Amino acid sequence: MKILVFNCGSSSIKYQFYDMPSGKVIAKGLVQRIGEKMADANQKTESGKEIKIQMPIADHEEAIAEIVKMLTDKDNGAIKSMAEVEACGHRVVHGGDAVSGSVLIDAKLEKIIEDFSDLAPLHNPPNLIGIKASKKVLGDKVPQVACFDTAFHASIPEKAYLYALPYEMYEKFKIRRYGFHGTSHRYVARKAAEMLGIDKYKLNAITAHLGNGCSMAAVKDGKSVDTSMGLTPLEGLVMGTRTGDFDPAIIFYLLKKGYEAKDIDGICNKKSGLIGISGLSNDVRDLEEKAKAGEKRAKLALDIFAYRIKKYVGSYLAVLNGCDCVIVTGGIGENGVTMRKRAFENLEALGIKIDDAKNAVMVGGKGGEITTADSKVKVLVVPTNEEGAIAGDTYALISGGSAN
Amino acid sequence: MKILVFNCGSSSIKYQFYDMPSGKVIAKGLVQRIGEKMADANQKTESGKEIKIQMPIADHEEAIAEIVKMLTDKDNGAIKSMAEVEACGHRVVHGGDAVSGSVLIDAKLEKIIEDFSDLAPLHNPPNLIGIKASKKVLGDKVPQVACFDTAFHASIPEKAYLYALPYEMYEKFKIRRYGFHGTSHRYVARKAAEMLGIDKYKLNAITAHLGNGCSMAAVKDGKSVDTSMGLTPLEGLVMGTRTGDFDPAIIFYLLKKGYEAKDIDGICNKKSGLIGISGLSNDVRDLEEKAKAGEKRAKLALDIFAYRIKKYVGSYLAVLNGCDCVIVTGGIGENGVTMRKRAFENLEALGIKIDDAKNAVMVGGKGGEITTADSKVKVLVVPTNEEGAIAGDTYALISGGSAN
Repeated sequence: MKILVFNCGSSSIKYQFYDMPSGKVIAKGLVQRIGEKMADANQKTESGKEIKIQMPIADHEEAIAEIVKMLTDKDNGAIKSMAEVEACGHRVVHGGDAVSGSVLIDAKLEKIIEDFSDLAPLHNPPNLIGIKASKKVLGDKVPQVACFDTAFHASIPEKAYLYALPYEMYEKFKIRRYGFHGTSHRYVARKAAEMLGIDKYKLNAITAHLGNGCSMAAVKDGKSVDTSMGLTPLEGLVMGTRTGDFDPAIIFYLLKKGYEAKDIDGICNKKSGLIGISGLSNDVRDLEEKAKAGEKRAKLALDIFAYRIKKYVGSYLAVLNGCDCVIVTGGIGENGVTMRKRAFENLEALGIKIDDAKNAVMVGGKGGEITTADSKVKVLVVPTNEEGAIAGDTYALISGGSAN
Repeated sequence: MKILVFNCGSSSIKYQFYDMPSGKVIAKGLVQRIGEKMADANQKTESGKEIKIQMPIADHEEAIAEIVKMLTDKDNGAIKSMAEVEACGHRVVHGGDAVSGSVLIDAKLEKIIEDFSDLAPLHNPPNLIGIKASKKVLGDKVPQVACFDTAFHASIPEKAYLYALPYEMYEKFKIRRYGFHGTSHRYVARKAAEMLGIDKYKLNAITAHLGNGCSMAAVKDGKSVDTSMGLTPLEGLVMGTRTGDFDPAIIFYLLKKGYEAKDIDGICNKKSGLIGISGLSNDVRDLEEKAKAGEKRAKLALDIFAYRIKKYVGSYLAVLNGCDCVIVTGGIGENGVTMRKRAFENLEALGIKIDDAKNAVMVGGKGGEITTADSKVKVLVVPTNEEGAIAGDTYALISGGSAN
């Protein structure tokens, strides 16, 4: 069965084309600069065939029509006819408190995506536009499935999702912790359970998705019970360009200093984090090199990044009253040997001991344990696969199963 | 030697009058509504004599003159002449990064207090007014000592005090974590070291000051290495009326919803925390009763309050790589039997086991351990004494010693 997975942004569509249940990626591609004067589209197939196109693409509907053309291209495509595509899976960012798993898309669900656009104004609207375009281009017979970044965190209990703001803020504006990266947190938790031979609903773990955005989650009995991102992806860990946690009163202080709210918002989301501290780069690899070369603020940025991970590890160990493992994933989690060392060193008292030799070789998509044999809490590197998880959910749902 | 300790607010002065080095409180009192139409002043001596006065008091200078009169009152005072007073200690909130301990006040120090007024606009100005009034009324021969709420936290390393904001925010506006309640955190850490028979500079501990304001600190080798309050006292734990940590982007969200910055500031500081969640009370005792009576939001407020303490315990255990003890103090810490249970239960995996019988009796100013004999990390209740610590520092400094 062939399944097409879409990740639609405001001016771009990423897609991966899967054979299921094997999980093999038959083709993948990207359309960029939709709606601009000139758009780019490119696709690679599993067998190494490539297509690159430059042409104006007015909207998401035209973009998906173009993707269909590329997939069915006689010479360099992946399939003969779109009739082979049995379903589409869509990444959707925000399902609020209305969605606790992946779901077949109907009018009611589209309404939900619209309702939560207010909380994810940069993501939900293009996600929905992509869904509508996909339905139009591929027709009603192809079922469409939505997989939400927030869904895995729907199990977080009230004491962890509610902020200590006036309760009316929750009732009136739905202000609460939602969390993001849920598809990744769930995927790596399930994989780790497999690796450790533990039933997936008995795994207690701390998951750390460390990529462009970074978030951690506490997973009890296979379910998310807390996570570091909140109402928005600004909260929690330090990220490439985002602050993560800071004293919110700093915003009032900067407003008094004459800053505009929208500028502070921009600073917190785009000019902070690793790039903000270091003044050099938002990329851990660059900063590791610069730190080695003696750049103090590069080292400081890395130290702060690692220190915050360590604090969340401790925090979630307390939330879970101990756990089986800590799982790291995402670009930095999968490849940041030195960063993993920074974050997990000096945690012996909490049962975590990194094995430097194992840590050093766990890179480039390799998964496995990086702790010593006597480490009470294991640290596992587990490469994430969000698109694969969406394909898996879509396959499960249209095969009459459930996705979780 | 007699030492007078002042805590000056914008319209009030609290004072305690000490015999040192015994630490005996000879008298204490409060002047309220300074500058209003009618002020109140009251004083109690150790021997039970009371004075209550109602009269207009124009400013802090008049208030301190009135305190002098009450202390030397022939019938109900505590001493014959102010010549017996050998020094004054002042609580000062913010010493920024310029002060790492209690210090004899001179013109340079007054300038420092003024310089950091910007970061503590409600506290530093009246603190300084009080110091100047005290000097004027008591004369130049009485040395004045300042004890800063921030001083104990001056040892926090860069990776813990720096936010992941653009580095210029630190350079330009001194935006960083300062922390507060330092005098209390230090006092209970020193006391706990005594109780446990550990050298005070070898103690590794987590201190939790749980009163009207609440903050926690990680103490390594007797020095603060992290704390939950930040640039301001808004950050960190849930408090009676303050939010503690929340996604700062909520402020941008509320601004977009039409709220004014100053109103959000007020909501976060005065209408949030326990009162905000429960809608009932900012007092843990009230809420415990209401929770027992079945009020769900009272229980929710208490659960969130406890959950946040638990998360910081875990976080600081990671920061410290284990520790000797967790110390609780402040009104809630010293008396909140049920709250202590809520916060410290289900932490066995981290080496913390509460002994219910010990916990139940540790109230009303009693100090001691509330964990089981086999609890790897002890939890100690240690009644705080900030004024006593200020008197102790003042005594040490004017006796030629150092205060730490």
